Amino acid sequence: MSIVTDLYRPSLALLTDLYQLTMAYGYWQRGRADDEAVFHLFFRRNPFAGGYAICAGLEYVIDFLQSFAFDEEDITYLRTLTGNDGKALFEEPFFAYLRNLDLKIEIDAIPEGTVVFPQEPLLRVTGPLLACQLLETPLLNMINFQTLIATKAARICQVAKGDQVLDFGLRRAQGIDGSISASRAAYIGGCAATSNVLAGRLLGIPVRGTHAHSWIMAFADEPTAFKAYAEAMPNNCVFLVDTYDSLAGVKNAIAQGRQLRKTGYEMVGIRLDSGDLAELSIEARKLLDDADFKDAVIVASNDLDEHAIAQLKQRGAPIAVWGVGTRLVTAYDEPALGGVYKLAAIRQPGEAWQYKMKLSEDNSKSSIPGILQVRRYSRQQSFVADMIYDDRLLVPDAATIVDFLGGEGNMTMRVNDQYEELLVPVFRAGRSVYKMPELAEIQRQAGTQLLGIDESVRSGSQRYPCGLEEGLEKQKNKLASTVSASSPP
Amino acid sequence: MSIVTDLYRPSLALLTDLYQLTMAYGYWQRGRADDEAVFHLFFRRNPFAGGYAICAGLEYVIDFLQSFAFDEEDITYLRTLTGNDGKALFEEPFFAYLRNLDLKIEIDAIPEGTVVFPQEPLLRVTGPLLACQLLETPLLNMINFQTLIATKAARICQVAKGDQVLDFGLRRAQGIDGSISASRAAYIGGCAATSNVLAGRLLGIPVRGTHAHSWIMAFADEPTAFKAYAEAMPNNCVFLVDTYDSLAGVKNAIAQGRQLRKTGYEMVGIRLDSGDLAELSIEARKLLDDADFKDAVIVASNDLDEHAIAQLKQRGAPIAVWGVGTRLVTAYDEPALGGVYKLAAIRQPGEAWQYKMKLSEDNSKSSIPGILQVRRYSRQQSFVADMIYDDRLLVPDAATIVDFLGGEGNMTMRVNDQYEELLVPVFRAGRSVYKMPELAEIQRQAGTQLLGIDESVRSGSQRYPCGLEEGLEKQKNKLASTVSASSPP
Repeated sequence: MSIVTDLYRPSLALLTDLYQLTMAYGYWQRGRADDEAVFHLFFRRNPFAGGYAICAGLEYVIDFLQSFAFDEEDITYLRTLTGNDGKALFEEPFFAYLRNLDLKIEIDAIPEGTVVFPQEPLLRVTGPLLACQLLETPLLNMINFQTLIATKAARICQVAKGDQVLDFGLRRAQGIDGSISASRAAYIGGCAATSNVLAGRLLGIPVRGTHAHSWIMAFADEPTAFKAYAEAMPNNCVFLVDTYDSLAGVKNAIAQGRQLRKTGYEMVGIRLDSGDLAELSIEARKLLDDADFKDAVIVASNDLDEHAIAQLKQRGAPIAVWGVGTRLVTAYDEPALGGVYKLAAIRQPGEAWQYKMKLSEDNSKSSIPGILQVRRYSRQQSFVADMIYDDRLLVPDAATIVDFLGGEGNMTMRVNDQYEELLVPVFRAGRSVYKMPELAEIQRQAGTQLLGIDESVRSGSQRYPCGLEEGLEKQKNKLASTVSASSPP
Repeated sequence: MSIVTDLYRPSLALLTDLYQLTMAYGYWQRGRADDEAVFHLFFRRNPFAGGYAICAGLEYVIDFLQSFAFDEEDITYLRTLTGNDGKALFEEPFFAYLRNLDLKIEIDAIPEGTVVFPQEPLLRVTGPLLACQLLETPLLNMINFQTLIATKAARICQVAKGDQVLDFGLRRAQGIDGSISASRAAYIGGCAATSNVLAGRLLGIPVRGTHAHSWIMAFADEPTAFKAYAEAMPNNCVFLVDTYDSLAGVKNAIAQGRQLRKTGYEMVGIRLDSGDLAELSIEARKLLDDADFKDAVIVASNDLDEHAIAQLKQRGAPIAVWGVGTRLVTAYDEPALGGVYKLAAIRQPGEAWQYKMKLSEDNSKSSIPGILQVRRYSRQQSFVADMIYDDRLLVPDAATIVDFLGGEGNMTMRVNDQYEELLVPVFRAGRSVYKMPELAEIQRQAGTQLLGIDESVRSGSQRYPCGLEEGLEKQKNKLASTVSASSPP
């Protein structure tokens, strides 16, 4: 068996937690597989102590669902699983059911690149209980990670204030697809390019790269190495200058830049990868300017993130391009988004919806019952507030929002502005009805969205108003009291 | 195009940083593609402020290399890349070279599941400069991540002191393969099972799972839900008790356990997923014991890691099985291992080796020149010290080790014990010569290895003696002074 190539197979139906399959079996066995259910996928807290997230991962979800099928090897494997009596976990007829499983689900989703906030359903999955349940884990895997990284990238790009940010994270990324999907999400969040060539080929993300320390070390000295590189690839010259001594390296780069010019090429710039990047970049800039290389950019790398870049900016570092690796692709300071997927409504065929919620002592951890939609009110280009409401309640254009996560008790606001509904149809009857935008379009969308929220929200110093429509709030409180009363003594 | 299925393709030749390809082009163009090079892959600091790492990822590397080939789509893509003059980066004849590229490399590696320390080469890659260079990024990606997670799992399992640890991380893992390779590494580090069914199918890791909160919520009340689950799958009953009220849930589980017994089945246990796990598990244990369910285990989950488990153990929590998710598969508190891949020697055909090193003001960041091997001395079953030495220097069995990372200046020790060489042949002339052990065997190996180091080393309170053979140390210092002298002014 080859792990890498075996992993690269079309069916990922088993990419789920075992308990989804044991529950699926239970629903099937009790004749409840086709009960209709509504699940919401949402997160409870903005990552990185920030004020927002950028949602991402939907295209993976769509692709995953479109190729979803249990193949014979999956079934053969499931047949081997046993319980504590050594006997099979699953009955044979269940496998016939899985083999023919058509998901038949509906998905409504917030498009990738949208600014989103805690408690807002990023996905609403409606359909047969069994199918909806099976999908919990893969949907969370894809949405959690890409939303996390798109958000991290957006934070970094905002601090970079228009400078190019490059994703250099492949070597420290968490697995093969950990790198590909990170590069994808980083691009959505605003990165200009990636070093990851496979991400470039598969996803059309621009790629960048020149040479490493090993190039320099493979030659007798740095000037020889720069010369050799420039001769090989004169139209892609960013010289890495810190192999031995950064400022000496800048001088060598300038010397080589002069040679390049004689042959009709222009040095793109230099890269600093160690030392005090503020001090070195200021010195390097002077050397470059004095030598008439005013257009040569300074690229910097070495454990950068939004905090390091902000500090360097504050110290006046004339760095124009930021290579960000580990801390971007692993979301180093908070490497997981705690997204969850909760049952919110259920009905047996022909019966009325029963709303459901998971209770918690912490109000933010209680789930919101209903069949939810998110309405975003805006004035000109600015977002005013988001309202989570129940699609089945008639809500007027002018509505009252109860902001139950406000911190100092609930805040109530009346909004009467133009709005849009954030969740849009993506799957109907198990088939995609969504025209997936190009990745570059999603990136533009994220940029536009970020302009819609206030700087104080972007920085996390102020909370964006987001709450429940008052009818939904009442419905939630009422159900909460019923559920706690009905819970066993 | 479908991302998920397109990603699942046999050739991953472009899974590399662009600069590896631009450097490869440069070497090819200058006729140096076949210079012979030696690179070492190593890390500089133990992760998690701990005392060791468990190396992992080699099987991925072997698989990756065995299927390594540029296909026509790769070439078509590379042809589209341009420099700052808008013209192609690569010349056409280079593509013919890539199409026919046979890696022809040699790899010596420390087997997976071995305890390893900073500066020790986990991989030594020898062969044509161009091929060795191309592989830097994918090798780092695979080894860095899996070594990180195997180490994290080992730390968690050590604190669990023989209790079962289950990997529940799929939903928060970093991408699809981020989850599969994390489950693999977690198993190597000592986890008993995973919730990830695809990891179970592909890798043979035992899988576990029963039901979630949504199962409870899909029924009228908890007793009804437990009953339904027990009827569907009586041989796999771990009841999740915290949907409404954990201790009330335990009582409902006990009631259902009694019903189960009447039908000849035994309840496996209960799972706690919120609240004060120490307090709740003590209460739950009493309830279970008093009801004559002494063999029913208490499973706990909810943001666990080695620190949380140690605290719970200290408070006397009678938890027998630990479900660990996010903090394991993302290595939450330190989500990247800073492994690097450095050129250490190079020679042109027919000439003598030139040793190479990357200098840094921080001694631990200067690379070690030479063609390295690691010798581990041991006395009975205990490891005494590791010695990094140059394979080309004749080193006697009794040798002197200079521990250059000791902290309070260099420490020198003389060792004269039995030893083994840690790096073993894996690839010769581009073909695997290594018999890959079964995953379960690697896990056993990791367990045995951990017994070889002292508890003070495992806990990180004491450093394991690991240094350079004295001849190598001299060689390194000599080269360092030459390199700094020869570096440009």
